[in-house]
Parts: sequence; C-alpha cells; structure tokens
Amino acid sequence: MSTVAPNPNPESDPRVKAVFDDIRATRKTDFINNMWRYLAFDPALLEQTWAEVKRVMATPSTLDPLTKEMVYITASVINGCSYCVHSHTAAATAKGMTREQHAELMSIIALAAKTNQLATALQVPVDPVFDQG
Amino acid sequence: MSTVAPNPNPESDPRVKAVFDDIRATRKTDFINNMWRYLAFDPALLEQTWAEVKRVMATPSTLDPLTKEMVYITASVINGCSYCVHSHTAAATAKGMTREQHAELMSIIALAAKTNQLATALQVPVDPVFDQG
Amino acid sequence: MSTVAPNPNPESDPRVKAVFDDIRATRKTDFINNMWRYLAFDPALLEQTWAEVKRVMATPSTLDPLTKEMVYITASVINGCSYCVHSHTAAATAKGMTREQHAELMSIIALAAKTNQLATALQVPVDPVFDQG
Amino acid sequence: MSTVAPNPNPESDPRVKAVFDDIRATRKTDFINNMWRYLAFDPALLEQTWAEVKRVMATPSTLDPLTKEMVYITASVINGCSYCVHSHTAAATAKGMTREQHAELMSIIALAAKTNQLATALQVPVDPVFDQG
Amino acid sequence: MSTVAPNPNPESDPRVKAVFDDIRATRKTDFINNMWRYLAFDPALLEQTWAEVKRVMATPSTLDPLTKEMVYITASVINGCSYCVHSHTAAATAKGMTREQHAELMSIIALAAKTNQLATALQVPVDPVFDQG
Amino acid sequence: MSTVAPNPNPESDPRVKAVFDDIRATRKTDFINNMWRYLAFDPALLEQTWAEVKRVMATPSTLDPLTKEMVYITASVINGCSYCVHSHTAAATAKGMTREQHAELMSIIALAAKTNQLATALQVPVDPVFDQG
Repeated sequence: MSTVAPNPNPESDPRVKAVFDDIRATRKTDFINNMWRYLAFDPALLEQTWAEVKRVMATPSTLDPLTKEMVYITASVINGCSYCVHSHTAAATAKGMTREQHAELMSIIALAAKTNQLATALQVPVDPVFDQG
Repeated sequence: MSTVAPNPNPESDPRVKAVFDDIRATRKTDFINNMWRYLAFDPALLEQTWAEVKRVMATPSTLDPLTKEMVYITASVINGCSYCVHSHTAAATAKGMTREQHAELMSIIALAAKTNQLATALQVPVDPVFDQG
Repeated sequence: MSTVAPNPNPESDPRVKAVFDDIRATRKTDFINNMWRYLAFDPALLEQTWAEVKRVMATPSTLDPLTKEMVYITASVINGCSYCVHSHTAAATAKGMTREQHAELMSIIALAAKTNQLATALQVPVDPVFDQG
Repeated sequence: MSTVAPNPNPESDPRVKAVFDDIRATRKTDFINNMWRYLAFDPALLEQTWAEVKRVMATPSTLDPLTKEMVYITASVINGCSYCVHSHTAAATAKGMTREQHAELMSIIALAAKTNQLATALQVPVDPVFDQG
Repeated sequence: MSTVAPNPNPESDPRVKAVFDDIRATRKTDFINNMWRYLAFDPALLEQTWAEVKRVMATPSTLDPLTKEMVYITASVINGCSYCVHSHTAAATAKGMTREQHAELMSIIALAAKTNQLATALQVPVDPVFDQG
Repeated sequence: MSTVAPNPNPESDPRVKAVFDDIRATRKTDFINNMWRYLAFDPALLEQTWAEVKRVMATPSTLDPLTKEMVYITASVINGCSYCVHSHTAAATAKGMTREQHAELMSIIALAAKTNQLATALQVPVDPVFDQG
C-alpha cells in the first residue's frame, strides 16, 4: 500500500532514467530500490533527493561509510520509518556491520531513548558548562 | 525549572555517594553534571541508570567512543531532549569530534529526517530483498 | 491486525448508526472507512471524535478544505500514523490536490524536518523579535 | 544556550556574507535571524540549507506563501522545534495569517494529533480503497 | 516567550470569564494556569479545550484520578511538551503521587522507550495471537 | 519482515534457553512472544532487556500491574511502536482492563496529544508555581 502510484515504466521519463543511471553507476549495482521508484512520481523531487543522498552518503568525507549508516539507522528508528530502518540496516550490513556492532548500536539507541525520556520527564536544567553559545 | 527538587547535599545518602564516586573515577573528573544530581531523587533509579550508561558508553567495545557519542547525539536530537543534545555534543567534542565532523553529522541527521518523512508520506513498500526475517 | 475487534454489525447499536448516518450525509457517500468502524467499539468515543472531525474539517471556515487536508497530511506523516497518511492523502486528492501540489507538500515537509532537526541540534536561541508574549 | 559558538563577525567569511546578502535581498529586510547565524559555523551547511529554503519557500509555486507557512508551523510543532515554531508563526503572521486562521490551524493540529494517536492505538487497518500503489 | 500575546485582562471577554469561572469552581482554587490564559487568545478554542479536559480528567470514571495523571505525564514526556510535563507532574503530586510512585513511573517510561525502539529497530513481526481484529 | 534473522532453534544457546525458561516461569505460560525470539539474535541484549522488564513490570511495587500496562500502552502509542501497542494491549486485557477502561485510556491519550501540541504551538511559558527545582 502506498499513497502514490509508481510508474510501471519510470525510465521512459529521461529525467528519471538519468537519476536511475547515476544510482546504478554510483552504487555499482543494477538494483533500484522502491524509495527511488516511488519518488519518481515527481522527477524534480527525485533529482533533488538523490543529489543530496549522493553528496552526503556516497562521497568520501570525514566520517567513514559505516558510521554514517549507523547514524542513519538511529535516525530512522526514532523517526519511526519502517522502510528506512530496513534499507539502512541492509546498507550497514553490506558495508561490514557485524552482529556485535549491530547489537551494540541497539544498546546505544535503547539507552539514549531511556535517558532522553528521563531528562525530559525530570526537566533537568542544562549545566552552564555545556553552553557553547 | 524542573519537576523534582534536587537534594542540596545529595552525597549525604551513601548510595548516591557511591554512584557519584564511581562517575568521578570512571570519567576522571570531579564534575558531576545535573542529570545525575536530579536522578538522585531516587537512589535506585540513579544506580540503575548509571550502571547502564557505564556499561554501554564507558566500556571498551566494538564501536569507538566518538562513534557512540555521535549516535547518542542523533538519538537525543530526534527524541527532542535539549539537555541530552547539550551534554552529548560536549562529550563528543571532548572525545575529539572536529567542526567538520560535527557539520557532517548535522548533514546526515538532516538528510535522514527528510528521507524518513518522505518514505512515510509516500508509504513506500519495503523491498523484499531487505527482509532478514 | 488491530487491538480491538470491530463489531461485524456495528449499526445494530443506534448510537453508532446515528453517527454513521451523519457521516454518510455529511460526506455524501455510502462509504464508511475503517477509522469509524473501529472507533465504534466505544460509542461515546465514536460520537465525540466524529463531532470534532465534522466541526473542524467539514464546516466552512477561514481555511479552504484543501489547505486543511494538507495540514492534516503533514501532521499525520510526522506523528507516524500510516492509516491517517493514507486516508488524508486520499481526501486531499478527492478535494483537488494535483500531483504538483502533492510533490510540493512533500518538499515542504522534507525541508521542515531538516531545519527542525538542525535548530534542535544546534539549540539555536529564539530571536527576541519573534516573541509575542 | 547552544551547542555551537556563533562567529561574532560571521560576514568576515565571504561565503557567509554571500548567503546573508542573498537572504537580505530575497526577504527585503536587513534582519538576519539566529538560525542563519548559527548555521554559519559551517559555510557549506549554511549554503545548502539556505538554497533549499529559498527554492522551496521563497519561489512562486503551486501553493501560496501562507499555506506553505502553515504547513511549516504544523511540522515544527510536531517535530518539537521551539525555535521553528516561533520563527514560522512570525513568518505566517507577516504573510497575513489572521487570528482566526491561527486558531483554526491550532484546531486542525490538535484534532490530527488526537486521531493520529487513536488510529495508532487501535491499529486500524488501512482501507484497500486508499491504496494508490 | 510565546507565539501569541495573552490578553492582560482576559476576563473582560464574557466567554473567557465563563470558562475561567468554571475552572475555578471545578478545581476549587483561584489559580488559573498559563495554559488557559494563552488559549484565551481564541475563546472558542478555549471553550472546546476546557470542555474536553473537564469531561475526561475532572469527571468520575472507571480510572482513578491519579492513574489518569500518570498517563497524562507519560504522554506529555514522549510528546515532548515541557509545559505539560510540569503541569501534570504538579497535578499528580497534588493528587497524592508519592516519590516512590514518581520514580516507578520514570522507570516504566524509560523501559518502554527502550523496548519500543528495539522492536522498531528489529522490525519484530506482531504475533498473530495479539490480533483482536 | 524484520532486520534480523531469528534463530529457528534459539534455545540451542544455553543463555537464550535460560532467559526463555525464566520468562515461562515468571509468566506461567509456555508462550514466548516474538520480541524475545528476535532479541535472541544477541544473547547479552536479550538477558539485559528481560532482566529490566522483569524487574520493572513483573515485580510487586507501588503501582498495580494494570496501571503499569496502561502507562506502557501510552508510551508505545506515542513512540509509534506497532508491535508494542499490540503486545501491551493484550497484556492489559489479560490483567483485567475492561472495554470501558480501554476507551477511557484512548480518551486520555487523545486529549493529551491535543493539549501537548497546543502548548507547544503556543509556546506557553511554564507557571513558576510548577517549578520543583
């Protein structure tokens, strides 16, 4: 079930084809996952979203690729995006996340959820020393 | 403003003192931040929370300390915990997070928020290949 | 899967029948969607919820019907309600939302998610000029 | 309090100055609000964020400027961003939002929160007719 | 700081005065907390919100008043409403919540946050036996 | 669909078997629900999570078992955990939650969602009298 109808032949649109071609070239795979097939309902939205994903996630940077994926999993879990939890757990696994690392990531997310809620429930004042402003 | 009154002399309670002593020894600092001072309204809750923080965050493991802090910042931002965003950004900085890494972390959180919402808004079906069950 | 069992013959309860009749009359359709069928497990909750939906969403007001539905979609996406994302996207489409408007709504939700997280992550202080209090 | 230190003289950096100049020209005001002053800790992040805000919010499109701001307020409330609730309520007011429209927006957000939670609590199945996939 | 300007003399409006009088009579106190003073910017919104709070929270029912307040605290923490965490913790305390019960409530919220995130992160399938639909 | 593969024979691991045996003994049932079967992908995570659930939820305390489950349902709804909404609604029902209590819990969650969003949208300042710090 979805809220937009994916085009059965999305690459008939040259803007969509160009993005899909770049995804395949960047990721070195023929597989185009559903996120891109559904975003293709609006070529401009598809182009902008892929450009940002490519820049942030697929360009060498100060953080290693696996760390980036673990941050992405964390965000996806807390934002409650089932699709993204699946896709980024698969991506992290493909980039070498071990079972031990996966379990440890779960432990940190679980602990943060706990202390985040406790600090909010107690309305703990921020220590002045933490201020960088 | 907070919802519990912190004890002005929390270490008069030996259970609280034992936890504060362990925090000081583990972190090699005399500073006890407000989170622990407010959790001290209930010594059992303080003990359990610190034990878990120490085990997950202050014990050598398969993830390096800075990666753990960046995951914790991510969770804290999305869970909307102002206190925790402050404390864990300070902790990450203390563990060596550079300005470039901080900015890159911001970019990943911002991108994940965007794609998480898009996937939810479009109700994109999970690709069968992502299923590990 | 659901957490309450919908009554197979909900209109045997006259309070439920009265609400369903009013939904049909207000919306000029025979279709009663699942939200109401499941809320019917408690007739008082059904009556109160429908009364508020009718007052806020189905009464002429200072905002046009399509704008209201787009606000509702936005809330539903961020509150993570899959059912509501589906039902209100269908409602917006029925009220004339074009593909371009749908894509633009997606762009605003995505951008807001990004800047909301950035402002929280940086803990940007509110400019005094924004205060109305 | 914030997690980054804003540069007291941010426009000494030519990339920051170029963005600030464009904000002033686009908005026809000399006022630069804190969001941009704090994002300036990383010029690339500032440039990318402003470019997207300008494209989505300050370019004529299929949705009128006030509708866009009301969607942005909705997102900001539910994402829990105090800064953004303030800045976008101010922006909507500047674009003509009346007290009646503000109150009505509050009513829709409040109703959506209610029905979003009810649908999640009851785990109401999506009606097949809503599927566009 | 707030997004609406509270009327310095709100009871000059007879609709506001009637609600404030009912709050005072229902709660047997002269104190009107800020929530009502700010909602008074729109008398209809004030009337509707108070009517629902009175019906749900201040009418004898199948749940005792303290349990209701603890549920309300839980919701307020997770929805990230600082104002509501403060006001409902105060209300629960006024209704007899002990320090032990407060600490136990914190433990349940913290545990739920943890297991909620774990179930989402692992995408655990719902056991068929839990289905009531 | 899930992000980890459950072991088809989890009790071949003695640590997993010990936890499952304790779950069966504590709950006086042979049924092990999926949450534990999937957490078993990492025995340490399984042990720690069960130990906390047992301590908080299955040990006599200052809150009665049904109140605890209703708090847990509330958290699960707002955290958006479909699995947990199902499992804890089933648990509350098993502990005697009536249909009337279930409906009333829904009313409180719905009302809290509404007022939480309103207080955030209006940015209502906390009354000084609520401060316990």
